[in-house]
Amino acid sequence: MMEYALLLRTFLLRTARFFPKKEIVSVYPSGVFRYTYGDYFKRVCQLAHALKALGIGRGDRVASMALNDHRHLELYFGVPCSGAVLHTVNFRLPPNHLAHVINHAEDRVLFVDEDLLVFAELIKDRIPGIERFVVLSHTGNLPQTGLKNVVLYDDLIKDFPEDYDFPDDLSEWDPAVMCYTSATTGDPKGVVYTQRAIVLHSYALGLTFGAGESDCILHIVPMFHANAWCAPFGAVAMGCKQVLPGREVINMEKLCRIIADEEVTFTAGVPTIWMLLYDFLEKGGWHDFSKLRTIVSGGAALPRSLMKIFAEKYGFTIRQAYGATETTPLATAALPKSSMKGLSDEELYDVCTSVGIVVPGLEVKIADADGNDVKMDGRSWGEIWLRGPWIAKEYYKDPERTKEAFAGGWYRTGDVATMDEEGYIRLVDRTRDLVKSAGEWISSVDLENLIMGHPKVAEAAIIGIPHPKWQERPLACVTVASGQTVDAGEIREFLKDKVKASWWIPDSFVFLPEIPKTSVGKFNKRELRRMYAAGELTLA
Amino acid sequence: MMEYALLLRTFLLRTARFFPKKEIVSVYPSGVFRYTYGDYFKRVCQLAHALKALGIGRGDRVASMALNDHRHLELYFGVPCSGAVLHTVNFRLPPNHLAHVINHAEDRVLFVDEDLLVFAELIKDRIPGIERFVVLSHTGNLPQTGLKNVVLYDDLIKDFPEDYDFPDDLSEWDPAVMCYTSATTGDPKGVVYTQRAIVLHSYALGLTFGAGESDCILHIVPMFHANAWCAPFGAVAMGCKQVLPGREVINMEKLCRIIADEEVTFTAGVPTIWMLLYDFLEKGGWHDFSKLRTIVSGGAALPRSLMKIFAEKYGFTIRQAYGATETTPLATAALPKSSMKGLSDEELYDVCTSVGIVVPGLEVKIADADGNDVKMDGRSWGEIWLRGPWIAKEYYKDPERTKEAFAGGWYRTGDVATMDEEGYIRLVDRTRDLVKSAGEWISSVDLENLIMGHPKVAEAAIIGIPHPKWQERPLACVTVASGQTVDAGEIREFLKDKVKASWWIPDSFVFLPEIPKTSVGKFNKRELRRMYAAGELTLA
Repeated sequence: MMEYALLLRTFLLRTARFFPKKEIVSVYPSGVFRYTYGDYFKRVCQLAHALKALGIGRGDRVASMALNDHRHLELYFGVPCSGAVLHTVNFRLPPNHLAHVINHAEDRVLFVDEDLLVFAELIKDRIPGIERFVVLSHTGNLPQTGLKNVVLYDDLIKDFPEDYDFPDDLSEWDPAVMCYTSATTGDPKGVVYTQRAIVLHSYALGLTFGAGESDCILHIVPMFHANAWCAPFGAVAMGCKQVLPGREVINMEKLCRIIADEEVTFTAGVPTIWMLLYDFLEKGGWHDFSKLRTIVSGGAALPRSLMKIFAEKYGFTIRQAYGATETTPLATAALPKSSMKGLSDEELYDVCTSVGIVVPGLEVKIADADGNDVKMDGRSWGEIWLRGPWIAKEYYKDPERTKEAFAGGWYRTGDVATMDEEGYIRLVDRTRDLVKSAGEWISSVDLENLIMGHPKVAEAAIIGIPHPKWQERPLACVTVASGQTVDAGEIREFLKDKVKASWWIPDSFVFLPEIPKTSVGKFNKRELRRMYAAGELTLA
Repeated sequence: MMEYALLLRTFLLRTARFFPKKEIVSVYPSGVFRYTYGDYFKRVCQLAHALKALGIGRGDRVASMALNDHRHLELYFGVPCSGAVLHTVNFRLPPNHLAHVINHAEDRVLFVDEDLLVFAELIKDRIPGIERFVVLSHTGNLPQTGLKNVVLYDDLIKDFPEDYDFPDDLSEWDPAVMCYTSATTGDPKGVVYTQRAIVLHSYALGLTFGAGESDCILHIVPMFHANAWCAPFGAVAMGCKQVLPGREVINMEKLCRIIADEEVTFTAGVPTIWMLLYDFLEKGGWHDFSKLRTIVSGGAALPRSLMKIFAEKYGFTIRQAYGATETTPLATAALPKSSMKGLSDEELYDVCTSVGIVVPGLEVKIADADGNDVKMDGRSWGEIWLRGPWIAKEYYKDPERTKEAFAGGWYRTGDVATMDEEGYIRLVDRTRDLVKSAGEWISSVDLENLIMGHPKVAEAAIIGIPHPKWQERPLACVTVASGQTVDAGEIREFLKDKVKASWWIPDSFVFLPEIPKTSVGKFNKRELRRMYAAGELTLA
């Protein structure tokens, strides 16, 4: 068989040639922009010429700090297909991390959305490696800015030819894109995706969710967050219509309008979005989801109650999936098996609230302390280990933390989980968030969910705090639902008949106006631990 | 990203572990055998042990000469997953070719179906490299045979352990399976498929036809013919139920019964099968195709009339696909684009009777004499060139013929075709079957179809014969429909207003009781040319 490299180029050329009339739609507050893959390809070619003119060669890194729109999508193919590496920057990182990742990646050009210019300005003096700032503007105007060496993206590319001979002699092992994931301690960790990994992931994504050319894909997941779960690559692979909602992604009225108007069939996002959607729908918000076929949720657990309401009241099913920046990201998907047709609704929700079965092409292990598979009984705990062609093998230029997470040919996710006899995985906790009390493990996630089941509690985060006798004990950090009051005794009473064992009930509670969160909206337990150690928390 | 090799092992282990209860069904004249992937995996493991015990190591070739059943499917994974190479032998080859391919591949063991034992016996003295004959028997009895070193497959494997540590250190570039394709001249040509090619093809196959775990796949294409179009590999990749109809594949009453009873959703085959099915249905044969979702046809053109009758009278659509032994085989598929919803029925049949658009992952070129793309106008002719990760780069140990078909990094298919502006390819002819008359090309296929449109003609094959003035002229070799008579003048008259130009009308006709066919049922034009050269044809 030919030594034909797995390159994004092949997908790009096929779709440009055979689906030139299919649409790509960007949604802005001011209105909708639409063009075709034919137009798209011409601009991707112009971009490739422009990169060359800027002196960007093979393996050079360029950064994007941008929202979801068609210009960002042009970078998604224009940069890697010309042999350079696109570093998608999470602009929500704190400035020191923002500067760090750009410097650590040695980015030479920063493509920055006009709406995010402030983030670039904030760190401009700390990123000396950036030779050029290129502003992605949907208004067509270069805003007032203190940045130097600034050019409008459209101006940068406009005079170049509309075709380009994309190299077919890249290696499939060449880096194509990279992004950083926030770490519990220290700087963000970089993950580099090869051309090969993204091509294979595109196939697996389409195959897993039964997606194809006729799908219209709405990208809710930010394009800086694990490449919008790599759906933009899969969409070009199959020739799908794509809709990019930019900052309108959290405007549910607009989002529902887009879904109806553009006849969206496939979308994916984090539970936060589905919660916003739920609120909107419950208030009687207009929607027409008749074309919507597949909704994927990931990044955090979608509450069973929400899944049920969506299915039973609004008629659409949400599919959970699981992965990480280190896994490109699709690793598992919670699709019921065809043999499960006879199950009751509740049994099906049991399946759908898991994170699912590993997708074809990967290997998974729920590993005990010795690295052996735990029993497939739905009860035994172990750490999720993954390996496969789109799983990272290292953190970029970070041998220390590489050693912790990648060993023996597996990626150790740090997620503790069970696997049932059908192969469905359920998350128990992060390894580091488990609380070890008197030699027994307590799942912080389970305990949080129990406490959040109390009607007067809004949020609850559990951390383990040192205990002279029991080693560790759980500390519950709680925010009270608005307009309510609740005390520790009431919550303890509430937990009595719900916890697995009485020693799960926290001895100590802290009531906070807000739980600190990470840049991606998860409970920041590192910060809570620091606050506890610094004596900043008042125990109730 | 990990250097994780693309191996069939990954598919096998996933499906054995997570879909152990899904069924594999073999259909025999005597009845139906069914077991599960759980059982299947145990026997695949036993087979791997048995191969080791026979001294079969990495890269060693073993041959199968077998029908479509579960034992053959065990070989499909047991052999390549243990590191050896499965050579699927087309038992319909003439004995000299049969012996040749086994010797040329240096097969060491021959797994032979009890029903095909006679083919092995016929050549047993000409295949000295075969150390062991292993009989795949569904009756459980070793038949009387003149073969030496014979053992029943079930006896060979039965005492070995039911688990096996399939090596994960194979290279994805290692050969997994191989088969031979009949050649116009000389011996059959061998094509070797790597593990990588089959894994990638499995993804592309599923993605192209929207197949998934819930599909039940009926394997009509023989497992010796381009690996049943590699559908068995795709089926294991996704965890599909599989049905293997053995010799019952041409028993339409039984086939329709299987499709209904087993709830088959996906099948594929050559037009010959669909013609048999048509006859059966037209005679009022019982059928229930309510679960059947996808039928793929390939290997030869399916007449438009047949496609229409199936769709309009029997309610199912047949999808044409195109490929060759050299392309694993899926290269193009004729699926209408989502933008074509508004087309009329006739316009849609225009699309569906093409061979389609190249599938994601491959590159296609309709090449003119200089290797440049011809216009995408649906009229310009060129040769179909293909390249991609599941396209062969050579014929096995055959540098001479490799040079003819593989050059400049492309596989030159020898098929002449057009491509329309939407990218749909339509076959015109084989390059070698085109007739060059006075410097202009005549498509033998087009002319044959025109002649076969005459109600009194059953079959027509066109060959080019030398002409002193016009270089070449078409000779029409015709068989008359049963109970009819027709002469050359009548056919010439019939063609007058149908041919592209008057010089397309053959000067010479030959009436034959039968057109000679190749082992796969195509017109054997080589034989016709030989007969003409030898003066064995009487011109009318």
